[in-house]
Amino acid sequence: MKTYLDCYPCFLRQALSAARRAHASVELQRHILLETMDQLRALPADAAPPVMAERIHRMVRRLTDTPDPYGQSKRDATVQAMTLLPALRERVRTAPDPLETAVRIAIAGNIIDDGAAEEYELQSTLARVLEQPFAIDGMARLRQALSEVDTILYLADNAGETVLERVLIETIALPVTYVVKGGAVINDAIREDALAAGLDAVSTIIDNGSDAPGTLLEHCSPAFREQFAQAPLIIAKGQANYETLSETRAPVFFLLQAKCPVIADDLGVPIGSVVLKAPVGMS
Amino acid sequence: MKTYLDCYPCFLRQALSAARRAHASVELQRHILLETMDQLRALPADAAPPVMAERIHRMVRRLTDTPDPYGQSKRDATVQAMTLLPALRERVRTAPDPLETAVRIAIAGNIIDDGAAEEYELQSTLARVLEQPFAIDGMARLRQALSEVDTILYLADNAGETVLERVLIETIALPVTYVVKGGAVINDAIREDALAAGLDAVSTIIDNGSDAPGTLLEHCSPAFREQFAQAPLIIAKGQANYETLSETRAPVFFLLQAKCPVIADDLGVPIGSVVLKAPVGMS
Repeated sequence: MKTYLDCYPCFLRQALSAARRAHASVELQRHILLETMDQLRALPADAAPPVMAERIHRMVRRLTDTPDPYGQSKRDATVQAMTLLPALRERVRTAPDPLETAVRIAIAGNIIDDGAAEEYELQSTLARVLEQPFAIDGMARLRQALSEVDTILYLADNAGETVLERVLIETIALPVTYVVKGGAVINDAIREDALAAGLDAVSTIIDNGSDAPGTLLEHCSPAFREQFAQAPLIIAKGQANYETLSETRAPVFFLLQAKCPVIADDLGVPIGSVVLKAPVGMS
Repeated sequence: MKTYLDCYPCFLRQALSAARRAHASVELQRHILLETMDQLRALPADAAPPVMAERIHRMVRRLTDTPDPYGQSKRDATVQAMTLLPALRERVRTAPDPLETAVRIAIAGNIIDDGAAEEYELQSTLARVLEQPFAIDGMARLRQALSEVDTILYLADNAGETVLERVLIETIALPVTYVVKGGAVINDAIREDALAAGLDAVSTIIDNGSDAPGTLLEHCSPAFREQFAQAPLIIAKGQANYETLSETRAPVFFLLQAKCPVIADDLGVPIGSVVLKAPVGMS
């Protein structure tokens, strides 16, 4: 998905938020906004939004000398989500359709996104997403695909969200390779975030070698690209994975909440939608 | 009030919205965003936000060759508000405190703001603002001031809002000079908008000679500045008048809803607050 003009104000908001999280002075915050505007001017018209986000967050980390401005937010989100884990497992265990319930729990976790908004409320989101009809319903396709493969490549999204994805991975009785980012960006999960959420107990954790949100394949490591190319089934979580992979020919199921109007428009769904999008052309 | 860094993303959003209302092509919309970023870079640190808004909207009108991109929105807002006029008058007539009710109706009208947001809902806002406690309550001071003067200078805000201000002006039994903008900017009322709302029946309409939101005194006509300097009591409506006049020594009562987090912080009130702020140091 290309960057829309509506993304421009959002990039400034995100740059300012990151600068403040990194405790930049007001003067440095302003400098970061001006740098962001320069980068926007230079952005290729067909670049996906995470290309810009990667540049902004690298710049903020460098200029503030802060390797992980969202570190505390990520740890807090994981701790909060871990308190829910027993109840979520019980919910799946007693559900009429455990797989769908686990998918919905994972999608609910997508509200944990320090890039899309400054605040979120996990409990009310869980209640909503467990009941809300899918705007795009790939459940039958996902169910079918899961019955045909013997391994899954799972592209993770944000810290904390990891815990809710763990519930889904525990529900799917297949070996899962869980892919985190190679370096810190926004509140995207890196290896330590996945470990804090216990993903090592239920999957093989690898990183994609990249510090961009989503999955910019050309910025990822050759080893990850190889895994991506060979995976029979890929679950890609969150908006940024949709932004970066929506035009890629691969067996990718996108799980997300459409939190931003641009992505909602691109998907052709109302904002706030619950989306499970199956790969185009995959039987 | 100075421009905060939080205003930067908001300016881009507003520039894009104005460009689209003026039917700019996507290419021109992008050019307008880049121009806006250039202007932000050049903005003096102590400039009030309407200084920037004036520049943006002049630029949009010029580049799109559209003299009043918000014209239709203003006409629609006035027509909608006029349908409420009889009921609002009745509400004031039967109120225990007609002045306070009329003040609240005028403040409710402040939701009609195409600069602060893309949408608003007038009826529900009226219901809320008629009941919500003032976050800053200058009612007693306003009541006292009204008893001591024989004329009022009323700085108008947006088209449509004009109708609800008319209810307040009808309630105040004093001669009112009603000040509109000298040229179109966002959905701020100009003379034709005030006439469409019937303000000529209850006040003397003048314009301030400026096409900035709010009241940038140094951009206003000498004739208006003279009236401003001599006015014994000024009612200034809306956020932009607060942004431009909050540091001016003058007998100004600010009536507004704090719709934006920056203005709410500057006022020291929660977002969504109903504000009637009396002049500092005025007895």
